[in-house]
Amino acid sequence: MAEGQLLYEGKAKRIYETTTSGVLLVEYKDEATAFNGKKKETIAGKGVLNNDISAMIFQALSLAGVESHFVEKVSERSQKVKHVEIVPLEVVVRNVTAGSLAKRLGLNEGEPIEPAIVEFYYKDDELDDPLITEEHVRLLRIARPDELKTMKEAALKVNEELTSLFADCGIRLIDFKLEFGRTADGSILLADEVSPDTCRLWDKDTNERLDKDVFRRDLGALTTAYEEIATRLRQKLTASGGELS
Amino acid sequence: MAEGQLLYEGKAKRIYETTTSGVLLVEYKDEATAFNGKKKETIAGKGVLNNDISAMIFQALSLAGVESHFVEKVSERSQKVKHVEIVPLEVVVRNVTAGSLAKRLGLNEGEPIEPAIVEFYYKDDELDDPLITEEHVRLLRIARPDELKTMKEAALKVNEELTSLFADCGIRLIDFKLEFGRTADGSILLADEVSPDTCRLWDKDTNERLDKDVFRRDLGALTTAYEEIATRLRQKLTASGGELS
Ligand SMILES: Nc1ncnc2c1ncn2[C@@H]1O[C@H](COP(=O)(O)OP(=O)(O)O)[C@@H](O)[C@H]1O
Ligand SMILES: Nc1ncnc2c1ncn2[C@@H]1O[C@H](COP(=O)(O)OP(=O)(O)O)[C@@H](O)[C@H]1O
Ligand SMILES: [Mg+2]
Ligand SMILES: [Mg+2]
Repeated sequence: MAEGQLLYEGKAKRIYETTTSGVLLVEYKDEATAFNGKKKETIAGKGVLNNDISAMIFQALSLAGVESHFVEKVSERSQKVKHVEIVPLEVVVRNVTAGSLAKRLGLNEGEPIEPAIVEFYYKDDELDDPLITEEHVRLLRIARPDELKTMKEAALKVNEELTSLFADCGIRLIDFKLEFGRTADGSILLADEVSPDTCRLWDKDTNERLDKDVFRRDLGALTTAYEEIATRLRQKLTASGGELS
Repeated sequence: MAEGQLLYEGKAKRIYETTTSGVLLVEYKDEATAFNGKKKETIAGKGVLNNDISAMIFQALSLAGVESHFVEKVSERSQKVKHVEIVPLEVVVRNVTAGSLAKRLGLNEGEPIEPAIVEFYYKDDELDDPLITEEHVRLLRIARPDELKTMKEAALKVNEELTSLFADCGIRLIDFKLEFGRTADGSILLADEVSPDTCRLWDKDTNERLDKDVFRRDLGALTTAYEEIATRLRQKLTASGGELS
């Protein structure tokens, strides 16, 4: 499937060179991991679903004016993206208390957060991706203050667009994680993936989990949940004329 | 020793009512605790030393224009303070990498941080005093944005004054933790204690630890270190005319 050299293999994706300079091929794997890799399983079909969902979301965001690394979907399992230098931050936006936030602050899950909050986690598996403050970002020289501001604003814009997109699909966008990178000309670009691996998505009516928490908490078949997301998104985007591959 | 009802017993101090409304008596205990109480020991003399040091520091801060809850030292082991409603935040200022910061970010200890950084920890033993961001403070309604700003500015002012005071004693102020409270009229006041239990203090020439790390890391006799701090502070403050009890 891949045309070039394997550059990096992560927990969820493989990154290959392509024949076009500055363009990479991202292959979505079937591995599911949680708790920083401590829980791990192969789930046939997950890669295909996440590639599909991520492509749809990047395209919808592009139509809404949010640029990303996404170039085109090239196969069931892979997409071409612009090569960026990843900023080692997980930029998390939260609309509702859940997961590590609820645990950290001793809050119940499911409480609305208004306005949404943005958090930064230092992307470092050895350190267990710790929460850090903007002052820590400065201390570590992870990003310049203006870059941090750009990422924060972009994350909130993505939140607005995706909250509305998912609402139209009967889904509440609880929280999500983004990664950004620097392009050759030094600007900040949304990168990595946006999928049920990186978003918390709850059915609006039933609160059913349609995201990686199904795997984290052994709540049932992961692919059934992800297929539900893919189907609803495709329906909505086809209806609204969102370009789909 | 105490005149009134015991209001609260913490890990390091007991708080009593006094006959004066709005004034409390703080009795410094000989207990040393670390790692959120997991390590614990009685160290004869520690309470007397911390009461002495804390009183000297609050008085020096007052002369430098930083108000605090401190009223007066009333005995070897106790001091009177203004009753405040404690804001459940540990406000930490860091001038040099050490302790949990170095561990969290994977940094070596002893690297200068310029300018100093201010961190907020949610004072909640059950949650293990987690690091939180300003947005979490807002979400938890721990403090209003203007109160947060006041605490941050006060913490940096305290840092300036104490860095210079300790430098005059041949000591580097590495980091420290403050607590603030709300007075009856709603203003924010520096409270709790400022002592080698709550500051990291390294000898300027030898880097010898003169603070609670001696206990945390079993580096020798804690009271010897604290006596060194008390002696150097007293010398410096007597020479410069700082009022001492
Ligand atoms: N456009 C891009 N250019 C370069 N690297 C990217 C790009 N998009 C994502 N990456 C990186 O590809 C790697 C593979 O993804 P993943 O399997 O999720 O890895 P990880 O286990 O590190 O999270 C990640 O380190 C991610 O940051
Ligand atoms: N001026 C004050 N008014 C009311 N409470 C105070 C004041 N100064 C400190 N305190 C509180 O007194 C308690 C006792 O101190 P300590 O033994 O250090 O307790 P802890 O184990 O909770 O840290 C702490 O909860 C502290 O916040
Ligand atoms: Mg990843
Ligand atoms: Mg205390």
